[in-house]
Amino acid sequence: MARVSQEHLDARRRQILDGAAVCFARNGFHATSMQDVLKEVDLSAGAVYRYFSGKEELIAAIASEVLETVRGTLEQAARESPPPTPDVLVPRALATMRELRPATLDTGEWLFPRLMIQVWTESTRNPELTAVLADGYAKIRRAWSGMAQSYKDAGLLPEDADVDAMARAMIALVQGFAAQMALFGDIPPRTLADGTRALMAIGRAV
Amino acid sequence: MARVSQEHLDARRRQILDGAAVCFARNGFHATSMQDVLKEVDLSAGAVYRYFSGKEELIAAIASEVLETVRGTLEQAARESPPPTPDVLVPRALATMRELRPATLDTGEWLFPRLMIQVWTESTRNPELTAVLADGYAKIRRAWSGMAQSYKDAGLLPEDADVDAMARAMIALVQGFAAQMALFGDIPPRTLADGTRALMAIGRAV
Repeated sequence: MARVSQEHLDARRRQILDGAAVCFARNGFHATSMQDVLKEVDLSAGAVYRYFSGKEELIAAIASEVLETVRGTLEQAARESPPPTPDVLVPRALATMRELRPATLDTGEWLFPRLMIQVWTESTRNPELTAVLADGYAKIRRAWSGMAQSYKDAGLLPEDADVDAMARAMIALVQGFAAQMALFGDIPPRTLADGTRALMAIGRAV
Repeated sequence: MARVSQEHLDARRRQILDGAAVCFARNGFHATSMQDVLKEVDLSAGAVYRYFSGKEELIAAIASEVLETVRGTLEQAARESPPPTPDVLVPRALATMRELRPATLDTGEWLFPRLMIQVWTESTRNPELTAVLADGYAKIRRAWSGMAQSYKDAGLLPEDADVDAMARAMIALVQGFAAQMALFGDIPPRTLADGTRALMAIGRAV
């Protein structure tokens, strides 16, 4: 019997996650069946269930991977000098999500933002998914807090600023822009940057 | 036959909307039936269907009312002098939502943020609700743009700042903070203010 390489296993796993993400984003988590996922990825039930026990495990794996990728981007950014400011990082966080999950609808609309609000809604009913999100957000919150500390170290932020509250505000910007994309269509990176920069400029001497 | 006063009609309409909002936030839009709503508000089918044809009309009315209330708050704020800055307005927008929809779960958790993400998810499948949201957001975007223009007029924002992009960033902050509340529990107004203020302070001479 031929040995199955790790590369093959990884590629198969990726294929299944990508197909499931498209199904959930397109039709919603509840309206998607495992049959729909099998059809989308063109694999047998046996091939898919070898990797994932069902929809719940699929959505948890998708959410976990996105959160982990964004965290990696932020930790890398925290090591840059000077530290990239929020008007650079907010578009970069969304670009990272787009690289990881580039799938679009037939209309060309980027699917990920819809997937994200599906995951949120599902998590209010699914304690395991809530735990995945809580863990991922806690890590991202620490990573953004680290960025805020870098701003202080670089003299870009007053010493008395609340780094954790700032982390939550930066996460909120990314979440809110993604929600607007899900509801009203794509937003150019330039608008994300200009909007964040205007917020940063408020009250500064002009 | 006794005449039914407008006050009575309004109170009844409010009672139905409040009960439906609680049901949708608690169990999700799809898992809620009109029977659940009738039970929650303790009214007969005849009494409820006199006001609303079904769940779709209920959720559209709830979304429309919230968006209208937030818009009113912003338009009022734009007339204040000096204009209240985003660290004041972001908590105020969320406080307005809390006044309009104060209902909590048995755990004390504020229900509205969960309702909001239910509405977003449902709108990706429901063109009428999408239209209600698109109309409401367009008005709120204009109101926040008006605020950004007031900042310019008061010398608080550089003349070349993009007011519409800034409006979208301020909406994103409110949406994102509300999403965090839905997923991870309430956020004190002070954290909303401190986080927004830290964003505003980035890059300023310290």
